[in-house]
Parts: sequence; structure tokens; C-alpha cells
Amino acid sequence: MTDVARIGLLGQGTVGAALHEMLGERADEIAAVAGRRPEVVGILRRAQGSFDDILERAEIVVELIGGTDPARDYVLRSLRAGRHVVTANKRLIAEHGDELFDAAREAGVQLRFEAAAAGVVPVIRVVQESLAATELTRVFGIVNGTTNFILTEMATTGASYAEALGRAQELGYAEADPTDDVGGADAAAKMAILARLAFHTPVRLDDVTYEGIAGIQPDDISYAKELGLSLKLLGVAERTGGGISVRVFPCFLYRGHPLAPVEGPFNAVTVEAPAITEITMSGPGAGGPETATAVLGDLVSILAGKAPVHEPRVELPIVADVRSSFYLHLEVADRPGVLARTAEVLGRNEVSVRSVVQRGLGDDARLVMVMHEGPEAHFYSALDEIAKLDFVRATPRAIRVIEEEFV
Amino acid sequence: MTDVARIGLLGQGTVGAALHEMLGERADEIAAVAGRRPEVVGILRRAQGSFDDILERAEIVVELIGGTDPARDYVLRSLRAGRHVVTANKRLIAEHGDELFDAAREAGVQLRFEAAAAGVVPVIRVVQESLAATELTRVFGIVNGTTNFILTEMATTGASYAEALGRAQELGYAEADPTDDVGGADAAAKMAILARLAFHTPVRLDDVTYEGIAGIQPDDISYAKELGLSLKLLGVAERTGGGISVRVFPCFLYRGHPLAPVEGPFNAVTVEAPAITEITMSGPGAGGPETATAVLGDLVSILAGKAPVHEPRVELPIVADVRSSFYLHLEVADRPGVLARTAEVLGRNEVSVRSVVQRGLGDDARLVMVMHEGPEAHFYSALDEIAKLDFVRATPRAIRVIEEEFV
Repeated sequence: MTDVARIGLLGQGTVGAALHEMLGERADEIAAVAGRRPEVVGILRRAQGSFDDILERAEIVVELIGGTDPARDYVLRSLRAGRHVVTANKRLIAEHGDELFDAAREAGVQLRFEAAAAGVVPVIRVVQESLAATELTRVFGIVNGTTNFILTEMATTGASYAEALGRAQELGYAEADPTDDVGGADAAAKMAILARLAFHTPVRLDDVTYEGIAGIQPDDISYAKELGLSLKLLGVAERTGGGISVRVFPCFLYRGHPLAPVEGPFNAVTVEAPAITEITMSGPGAGGPETATAVLGDLVSILAGKAPVHEPRVELPIVADVRSSFYLHLEVADRPGVLARTAEVLGRNEVSVRSVVQRGLGDDARLVMVMHEGPEAHFYSALDEIAKLDFVRATPRAIRVIEEEFV
Repeated sequence: MTDVARIGLLGQGTVGAALHEMLGERADEIAAVAGRRPEVVGILRRAQGSFDDILERAEIVVELIGGTDPARDYVLRSLRAGRHVVTANKRLIAEHGDELFDAAREAGVQLRFEAAAAGVVPVIRVVQESLAATELTRVFGIVNGTTNFILTEMATTGASYAEALGRAQELGYAEADPTDDVGGADAAAKMAILARLAFHTPVRLDDVTYEGIAGIQPDDISYAKELGLSLKLLGVAERTGGGISVRVFPCFLYRGHPLAPVEGPFNAVTVEAPAITEITMSGPGAGGPETATAVLGDLVSILAGKAPVHEPRVELPIVADVRSSFYLHLEVADRPGVLARTAEVLGRNEVSVRSVVQRGLGDDARLVMVMHEGPEAHFYSALDEIAKLDFVRATPRAIRVIEEEFV
């Protein structure tokens, strides 16, 4: 029988509830990956449960209360009692990191906090593990989904800041009191954490200069569009002048910048070093299941203890009958009936045409078509027939097209 | 004194040489992060060195020979002798993964191979560790930098396939015999590895259907541009119809697709699951220092043995004097001399103007300027003066601009 891993949950909000559900639903997979089956031995809710009881019973404590009081006290006591801790609390790490890291080191336990930086985007693991021995020169990105949603809304609908904020609140992307997000403090805390890990130096929240987006006007965005720029709230931590600079500010990016296309409540972080040029990671910056997934990744790493060695758990069949949309390029004789004949073959094979461009080139003509998505087998049997038509002058060229619905 | 970690290097090509150099230059940092100082105890070159000697002396074997013979034999013997192994060899893992994973599990050692999938892009670590317990539904991306360079070259310069391939060979992005890259076999091997890890199922190279890009014509790309599409060689591994499908094919992406802006010799991989929506990671897909950095990340993880706890190693000063480019938006009275006066203040403060847009709105006018990059202190002292000018009707709005040279 698999060993049980005793987990205590502090806090049961959106993320806590999502994590609790995942630990139940994914228990078999976690046991398969990590060798131990998670069991929640206690949950501390606002008006229910005792921290001391949970500390007594759990070997891993997950802190999802937020804020620093009582989170700091609970996390410190957990670490000092030899419990591994996973937290999603950026303020806690940004303000009390030194003390917490010291406690973890002294007790020889793990303190993991992937969800504290960029939601489910695994930037902390990449910086601390993949790039542990690489000298990073800059870490920058969009680390607040609320403000990125608001700026995207302003840019795409022409809404004012107040209107876009209202919409973010309706959709649950902004809190009733949005000060921490829109003022830049939330992003500043995340950048303090990233700068600390990237440059192996103590960075306090006070070291980060930050500005928010409340002063942005719709016409700033429309003038910028004329110049080919898009507006983002950017966090930048970099080595400069023999030290470091860590800042958060609203900022225009030129059209080809890798972060320019990051829209809505997404986060994206780019890490730079001479040896790697750059690595960019993006994904949802918040949300219950997303944040819970980041916490779960940390938990599984603690349970696994060492690097995973791949072990197949199922034998999934390879499925050949897939659906695709195709582009079809035909070199044809320029004479009547070519389009009708081609369309007939496609129709009979149940391939539906989305768009057609036909062009004469003297004697020669090109017929370029894009199909709606359908079974590949249908398209290929049509293609076999089309290739044999007498007006087709060269081997047809077929290339798949990824449509919007792909993602 | 720090413990020494004995490392044996098999193969000394571009990646091997870059890794060897890094292990020397970064030895202190590696010791600080991992607690052990790396020492290269043997290098197997084509005509020099003995594998048996290296196996005897090393506790970690790094395989950078490529191909399967003798790499498979060396890696198997290393694992069975209780040595951890790091490899960058995608063919080896794709063709002989089952046997190698079994050997690693039986010996209780680590087998790491981040560099075998997408260069320095840490997709294997993210899939195997961050998302170990998350049920992934699809993994797709651009996993061959050579073909992405060729397709980018064709799209931006109108070059034919043969011309673009020639250019890739000149720049060292394509080998003299490019068959494996342009035919899709290289991407297929990487997708076999990713599918195996993502879906916890055995995937053999034969299970992957693949096509290459040799048949692509410049006019396919130009027609596609008219339709707003860009062409990529895509690898797609997905759960479908109760099984999985793993394929590599050239494919048009619509303009807003997250992979559409990935250009040149870059790789990018997107991982999808209901709980995370999607995570996308991008970076260089090849290159000596880049691949060596991925190998180094694996090595450090083996040395560290457990999760890192952050420990500051230096105390870097916070530098406030940074350089930026600014957008400046002024609401001004519509009268002569406004631009001249504003420009005078900027000039005196050594702020250089790049572009200006001035617009009358009845009595009111807007002056919108973008500055060249310069010290922020200069800009802010100009801004203080400008805010006090009598024709300025509202608080000036200043927003930073990231120019192309940022990245």
C-alpha cells in the first residue's frame, strides 16, 4: 500500500477549495508520480479549525490565507517545527522572505511558492532550478493579470479606465478594492521575489519603485496605437551600474515585442542571460484552479523528493483519424468548369470549402482554397481524385491550417 | 571545503565545449547553489579517452555524442553502474526511452534530458515537475529551429526553399545534410518524448506521423499572407478519441495565434489542460551555450538533490539612475510658441525628442511627444519645469516606451 502524505490546509477560499478538490480527484495520479498518496488532515477556515492541531498532524503545511498576519506566524512556526511549507502568498515572501528562508534552511525543510509570482506560469521553478547556475541579466514581464485585463479592455473597446475596471470587477478579475493591483503594489511584490531569486541578493519590497495604471487615459492608448505601440504594466528587474534596479511602470511596447501580444488576464515573464538569449513563459496569472495547479506542482515536488523517472502508467492507442482544416493549392489549366469540377469532388467527399481565390496566369491558373475543418480521411480521398483530374497541371499542394478554435 | 562532484563528459563538440567552459567559469556559483563543486574527471573525444576509465571515475555521466551507437551502450552501462546521466540526445530517448528509463529506475539514479526536447526552453521540467499531477490534454509547438528559420526567411525575404536553406547552412542553423531537420524526423523525435511525458504512456518514434517542409513554395506563403496566416512546422500531441495522436506537419497559423510571432531559430511549446488553460514557453531551440545551459540545469538539479532554498550570496545595491524613453502627453493652450517653449525646456535638460504630434481641439490643443532614451533624472527635471509652464492646462502625462533595442 502506498504511503500517505499528511497535508494541512490553511485557508479555504477559491484557491484552497480548488486545491482540496484536486487533491481528492488526482490522488491516484499524485501517488503514481510522487510515490505517496496525499491526505488532507486538517483545514483551517476563518471560524473553524485550530492551527496547533493541524501543525501537530501535518507534515506539509499549505498556506493560502494571504496577507501577513497571521500567515507569517503560522508559516514560521510550521517551518521551525520541521514541516515543509507551500504558499501562494506574495506579500509574505516579499516582506518576510529573509526570515522565512532562514527558518527553512535551519530546519532543513522546503519552502516553495511558485504561485506567488506569476500564477501558474512556472517562472520560479525555471529561475531556481533550470537556470540555477546561469548568470541572469534581466527578468521582466507582465505579472499582474488584473491590470493587463483593464489595459486590454481599454485598447480593444476604447473604454475609460473606470469602465474597464468596472468590467474587470464584474468578471471577477479585480477585487472590490482594487488598490493593490491597479496601484502596482501587487506587481512590485512579485518583482521583489523574482529579483531576489534571479540575482541571489536580498530585495525588500521598499527597494522596488512602482507606479500603477489609474492615470492612464483612453487617448494615451489611441495616440500610441498610431505609433504602433501597445500599453502594458511592466515589471523590470535588471543588473545595471554594478547593482540592480527593480521597477514597475506602465509602458508602451512596440508591435514586435514578445510581450506585446499578451492580452487579458494573462501573465508573461522573460528571463535574459547571454548564454540563453531569452526564455519567455506565459499563462493565466490568477484563477482558482490555475493557482491551485501551481501549488499542487510544488506539493508534488516535495512529496517526490527527487527527480522523476518516467514510468508509463497507461498504454494509450495512437489515433489516426484526426480532423483538420486544409489549404489547397492547385495549378490548373485556365478554362471553364475547373472550379465546378473541383468543388464537386470536394463536396462528394464531404469536404466543405471556406474560401476560394482563383487567378489566371496566361494559359496557367491557380486555384487556392481553404477548407472547413473535417476528417483528414475525407480530405485525402478528395485530394487523390483531384490530383487525377485532367486540368490539374502539377501535384496539388495541401497544408493544414490552424484556426482560431484550436486554442 | 566543499565536496567535489565528479563529472564525466562523453563527446566534445560545440555543446560539450560550451559545457566544459561553463563548468569551469561557473564552478563557484554551482557550488553555492548545489552545495558541491563540479570537477570534470574525464572527457571522451573521438580519438581520445576511454569510456571505461570515465565510468570508473565519474558519478555523473553527461552524454553529448549524439546518435544511438555507441551512445545507447554508454548510457545504459552508466545507469546500470549507478551513475546519474544527463543527455541532450533526442534520438536516444525517443528510440530507446523504455529501456533507459527502466535501467534508471532499477538503479535508483536520475536520467535527465531537458536539452533533448526544445533546446533551452524548459518544457520537460515543467511537464515532469510543475505539472506532474495535472492531466494535460495537448502539447504542441515549434520544436525545430532550423525549419522555423527557413520558413521565417521565406516569409520575410520571398526566398525560395532552396535559397533559405542555403542561408540557414551559411549561418550554421542547418547541417550540411539537413534531411533530419527539414524532413520532420528531428521534430518527430522531440514530440515522441514530449507525448510520452505528457500522457504517461509509451510513445515510440514509429507512432509519430510526420511531414517536412521541402515541398513548400514561396507562393504558398504569399497566398497565405493575403489570408493573414503564417507558416510553421508544428508538432502536435493530443488526447483524442480515447487515445492519443502525435503528428508533425507544416501548418498555417492565424495572426493572433500565440505561436505565430515565433520567428527565426526559436522554439516554442504550449501545454494545455482544463485546470491551467495553457502555458506557453519559448526560447532558442539550439546553439552551443543555449543547449549547454539546459544540460547544466539538469546537472545542478542532480547535484542539489533536493529543492533549493533561497540564500542571498551577494548584496547588490539598488540603482536608481536608469535610462528610459518616454511618451509625453500635454494638454496645452492652442497658441504660438507652445512647441518651441516645450522643446527648449527638454533641450536644456538634455532630453532628445524623437517624434511629435500636435493637434488643435478648438481652444485646447494636445502635444504628444516620444523621446529618445536617456537618463530618467533628466526627463523628470524637464517634466517638473514643463508642468509649471503657463500654457500647460493639465498635469502632464508621462509613460515609458520600450523600444526595439530593449530586447
